[in-house]
Amino acid sequence: MKTRAAIVGATGYTGGELARLLLGHPGFELAGLYRLGSETAVSLAEAQPHLFGLTDLTCVAYDEAALRRSAQVVFFATPNGQAMKLAPALLEAGVKVIDLAADYRLHDVAAYRQWYKLEHASESWLARAIYGLPEVYREAVRKAELVANPGCYPTSAILALAPLLEARLVELSSLIVDSASGVSGAGRAHVTTSYLFSEVAGDYKAYGVAQHRHTPEIEQELSHLAGEAVQISFTPHLLPVSRGILTTAYATLVRPVSADELQGLYATRFAAEPFVRVRPSGTSPQLKQVVGSNFCDVSVTPDPRTGRVIALAAIDNLIKGAAGQAVQNANLMTGQDERAGLVTGALAP
Amino acid sequence: MKTRAAIVGATGYTGGELARLLLGHPGFELAGLYRLGSETAVSLAEAQPHLFGLTDLTCVAYDEAALRRSAQVVFFATPNGQAMKLAPALLEAGVKVIDLAADYRLHDVAAYRQWYKLEHASESWLARAIYGLPEVYREAVRKAELVANPGCYPTSAILALAPLLEARLVELSSLIVDSASGVSGAGRAHVTTSYLFSEVAGDYKAYGVAQHRHTPEIEQELSHLAGEAVQISFTPHLLPVSRGILTTAYATLVRPVSADELQGLYATRFAAEPFVRVRPSGTSPQLKQVVGSNFCDVSVTPDPRTGRVIALAAIDNLIKGAAGQAVQNANLMTGQDERAGLVTGALAP
Amino acid sequence: MKTRAAIVGATGYTGGELARLLLGHPGFELAGLYRLGSETAVSLAEAQPHLFGLTDLTCVAYDEAALRRSAQVVFFATPNGQAMKLAPALLEAGVKVIDLAADYRLHDVAAYRQWYKLEHASESWLARAIYGLPEVYREAVRKAELVANPGCYPTSAILALAPLLEARLVELSSLIVDSASGVSGAGRAHVTTSYLFSEVAGDYKAYGVAQHRHTPEIEQELSHLAGEAVQISFTPHLLPVSRGILTTAYATLVRPVSADELQGLYATRFAAEPFVRVRPSGTSPQLKQVVGSNFCDVSVTPDPRTGRVIALAAIDNLIKGAAGQAVQNANLMTGQDERAGLVTGALAP
Amino acid sequence: MKTRAAIVGATGYTGGELARLLLGHPGFELAGLYRLGSETAVSLAEAQPHLFGLTDLTCVAYDEAALRRSAQVVFFATPNGQAMKLAPALLEAGVKVIDLAADYRLHDVAAYRQWYKLEHASESWLARAIYGLPEVYREAVRKAELVANPGCYPTSAILALAPLLEARLVELSSLIVDSASGVSGAGRAHVTTSYLFSEVAGDYKAYGVAQHRHTPEIEQELSHLAGEAVQISFTPHLLPVSRGILTTAYATLVRPVSADELQGLYATRFAAEPFVRVRPSGTSPQLKQVVGSNFCDVSVTPDPRTGRVIALAAIDNLIKGAAGQAVQNANLMTGQDERAGLVTGALAP
Repeated sequence: MKTRAAIVGATGYTGGELARLLLGHPGFELAGLYRLGSETAVSLAEAQPHLFGLTDLTCVAYDEAALRRSAQVVFFATPNGQAMKLAPALLEAGVKVIDLAADYRLHDVAAYRQWYKLEHASESWLARAIYGLPEVYREAVRKAELVANPGCYPTSAILALAPLLEARLVELSSLIVDSASGVSGAGRAHVTTSYLFSEVAGDYKAYGVAQHRHTPEIEQELSHLAGEAVQISFTPHLLPVSRGILTTAYATLVRPVSADELQGLYATRFAAEPFVRVRPSGTSPQLKQVVGSNFCDVSVTPDPRTGRVIALAAIDNLIKGAAGQAVQNANLMTGQDERAGLVTGALAP
Repeated sequence: MKTRAAIVGATGYTGGELARLLLGHPGFELAGLYRLGSETAVSLAEAQPHLFGLTDLTCVAYDEAALRRSAQVVFFATPNGQAMKLAPALLEAGVKVIDLAADYRLHDVAAYRQWYKLEHASESWLARAIYGLPEVYREAVRKAELVANPGCYPTSAILALAPLLEARLVELSSLIVDSASGVSGAGRAHVTTSYLFSEVAGDYKAYGVAQHRHTPEIEQELSHLAGEAVQISFTPHLLPVSRGILTTAYATLVRPVSADELQGLYATRFAAEPFVRVRPSGTSPQLKQVVGSNFCDVSVTPDPRTGRVIALAAIDNLIKGAAGQAVQNANLMTGQDERAGLVTGALAP
Repeated sequence: MKTRAAIVGATGYTGGELARLLLGHPGFELAGLYRLGSETAVSLAEAQPHLFGLTDLTCVAYDEAALRRSAQVVFFATPNGQAMKLAPALLEAGVKVIDLAADYRLHDVAAYRQWYKLEHASESWLARAIYGLPEVYREAVRKAELVANPGCYPTSAILALAPLLEARLVELSSLIVDSASGVSGAGRAHVTTSYLFSEVAGDYKAYGVAQHRHTPEIEQELSHLAGEAVQISFTPHLLPVSRGILTTAYATLVRPVSADELQGLYATRFAAEPFVRVRPSGTSPQLKQVVGSNFCDVSVTPDPRTGRVIALAAIDNLIKGAAGQAVQNANLMTGQDERAGLVTGALAP
Repeated sequence: MKTRAAIVGATGYTGGELARLLLGHPGFELAGLYRLGSETAVSLAEAQPHLFGLTDLTCVAYDEAALRRSAQVVFFATPNGQAMKLAPALLEAGVKVIDLAADYRLHDVAAYRQWYKLEHASESWLARAIYGLPEVYREAVRKAELVANPGCYPTSAILALAPLLEARLVELSSLIVDSASGVSGAGRAHVTTSYLFSEVAGDYKAYGVAQHRHTPEIEQELSHLAGEAVQISFTPHLLPVSRGILTTAYATLVRPVSADELQGLYATRFAAEPFVRVRPSGTSPQLKQVVGSNFCDVSVTPDPRTGRVIALAAIDNLIKGAAGQAVQNANLMTGQDERAGLVTGALAP
């Protein structure tokens, strides 16, 4: 007997990726596809033509009653500010919810207001939400009713740096997170000149310099790992690729640490993790080794000349950075094998 | 009890794709990875780093005894001219073989010699080989010991044109096949200046003008469908993408045929095909709607001004054009569900 | 004393390319930048940030009086339907005009209405317009007041096929034109989901199958060259590159013609052309060998098996296919060296 | 009377770009094209097909006598270790030399040996070489006989950080330089699997982590600007584009500095620089706004939360990062307008 799952926001890139993963999942049945902002039903062949032929489902207008009746788990792949309005009614009815937007990620409503320019509409459920990074919060996720699926940049930054912070090997004031993301992170609804093919192809640039919204999320979780408040400098960049994030993180070591010691630290920390692969010291994870998969590849290299350490992480922003991690969380929340529906290698070349 | 499969040529692009598909297949067990041309064993993490962590297998030098002992199905993802030397011994021992190269595709050894500049080494098995296009030869494939997996361009060209030829709707002397392929079709071992990123990125060109080796293969199969000899003009082009083939085929109609009649013809012809999707008349299949999947998307549009028809087909050259079609054939040869291990949508965006 | 030139539509891709070329031109002074559809002036640094620092000009709302006063040549890089309304007043005042849109390309107003869904507003000037392909109409362009700058696809198709038609070597009913273009051809104002980077990157598709607007333009000019009416099948495709068009044209030879004879025909035909380069038989022009330049590279190859000939042509759609050809025409119209401001090689790699 | 220039290493990417620039230069005559490592002459149409038709020169084997006789300025676009062997004889004969490789960049031969694994063969000329960054060493370049053309990464890093170091606004121990480069930086001769299109397209990765050869060059020049020894952490990345470098540099401010003060500092510092454009605070330079041009675009943004400053710079690695800067230096060395042959905007889109 499969668990019935539904997607709200099934016409976007993340929603399409959720649909693709759930259609191939042994333990979930795709019970409904919904959209916000339009009353018009749309066939999957039109909304997600790459999935044409895999299901007869049609994506219809949001329907709370239908969701309460038919879904045991609901994924919100919607813009910021939507899930906090819609999820509480489902949660009260016993439906489990995973929000792939930012509504339930920041514990501090003041920070949410400051960075997202929105009043929070669901503070009581915010207090009960679990930050859905299984590598840090696995046991809490298993019992969660509401999971805040991590942001794409934060997933890569936190996994790159976690072992160093947990081991107290770096100066907390020295952290710099430099990331590059594929364009699908902007979503399909973001139709502006700056995302046109002719503008992005062959280009590369930073954006949101010193003010990107993922900064407080990364800081919250690194602070949790370090046991004290951490501030970072975070600079995202836009890569001319559809998918993938590479994060290059810099930190000053509190003492000289050899490449071997660092490698051992990471190998031990992630030994039991099904979706984190540790690459050799001195090398770099690569987008093409993770895109299409739920893997996060990490590497760690000391720079003895400067006393720093460089930690790198690569993910597929739509999978481990969004839909795949959401399914990983849903697997945990419903008592399934954490890897179910996610055990595939990257699509290379 | 899973069927034991082995891959010869597991370090290339097609071999890697076969490994990825077989590792996720419910009915096959990946029993061995082999390479030609090197005695050195190589770990999968090194040879195919995107598959690191999914298997403990190491790719070792070709070992006929081991293959006879451990494999029930062997995939040859090797350069032209290898399988015809190595496969007969396995076949004699009762191992089923699928050759992804061209050795067993052309029934006429003179044509093989002419286009491939090689003497054929296995004429008796050539006579018993089945051309592995399930949409045309499904029942023969089920009983085959040896399958010649079709070329990538031919797969797209034959599926685009099959309904027109079978229905005798086009002048056989009018066929033009214009195709564009991603660069992975050249393989990983093809390390020359002309395949460097800086040469290909932003570029587009024809190649092999009026002399590409897939020409006789397409002609052989179109002739089979038409019931008489067919000659075509075929021009392949190199696209600045890793994966995907789009074929645009032109033919003169023998009588005026409406868009609706053509659409009905294609819909009927492919109604029972699990991996062929018919798109609306006037539209085009797109690489991104098939890349990462085993689907072949086709469309057909009349051009009443000129009395021609334009038939289009898109595939992932490494999946429906190689590894996926090989798995589809292997499913048939071993009595499994033809779709096993292949039911996934394209990876878009 | 430089000739004063102005650009109407200076905020788009073609307008930006015109500005870039004219700023580096020894014989033209850029006397004004104008836009339609907005009263707001915009600095060049904002409208065309890649040209920031090269001029102090600001792009202002269309101003007929200013144009009559200050410009000797006006380039219209505007959407279809604009130049036919605005240009006549300038022409009456003695200003020379080059329209880069389609308003003055088709001699037949009925064809214009049919394919562009617009009533023609300037039939008398249409009758006096010269089709600005210097390789065919050089002397007429020298004396023209109004030049219709050719479409990008037609430029490549006509130059690919001209020698064959002039020499009467091909069956006129057999012509097929298969083209692929970079995305910049769609323009910067065309902001829709289907031109987003994430949709186009890694993709390839046909569009406008059997109904693209450049069809009648190509037919008009091929008919002129052949001396009788010609119909073609034309299929454009969208390449995942910003710039460049490659056209692959097919025709049936009226008699067997050797590669050498064809090569000699093309070499002779284009020997005096400053911007057409003939490549060796059997090879293909490449986008990267023309992008950034005003060159059109062509090659011609017989296919003796089928009695056809394959003619290929590559151009930069924004230069030889638009702004560069417009400057070439302006050079001719103002008595300058035809090559002025255009003698540069492609930007490779 | 034009100055006669020759290129050694004219078959590579940098050599081709030098040829393209010099062919369009008003003050230089391209007097010879040479190659190392082959005795075979090669036509330009074969070696650099995008330049076919622009010159009749053929690229021939290195010929010292011919160079001494015919060239007044010689550009070495050769691998590391070649110019230091060949240039001294030309310099003794009064020929001016610009080396685009690393042979004359590091003042310290021990550092050269350590990072390049080569013994220096020309220490006396090393002592007389000028580091060819006009924005720092303009007057010395004017009088130089031998110019060491800066590396591509160093050009971007030094220009991004120069105003901060000159003004002593940042902690010298805090500098981090994170860069991303297009693949053409690897050169055309670097034909390995890892630079194949199918490997690089859609990929992104770091390389040379904590050990790239441009590190000591950046440190040497930042130390010069700061007036004391500076060490940096430098991480280069490989972008899936042909051309362009973006550098993101981080430093800790010694005191709070406003965005306006930083903007004013950069505007003043670069006000007289013909090829440095200062972009608004909070924004990022973009590859597409510089690729095809000799511009370096920079921006500077404070991060008051962390007390850091983020400085960004973008260049075309083959132009301002190599051939264009070499021409800029040659202009200065021969008394020409520094901008001659280089005043063009980027090729966008």
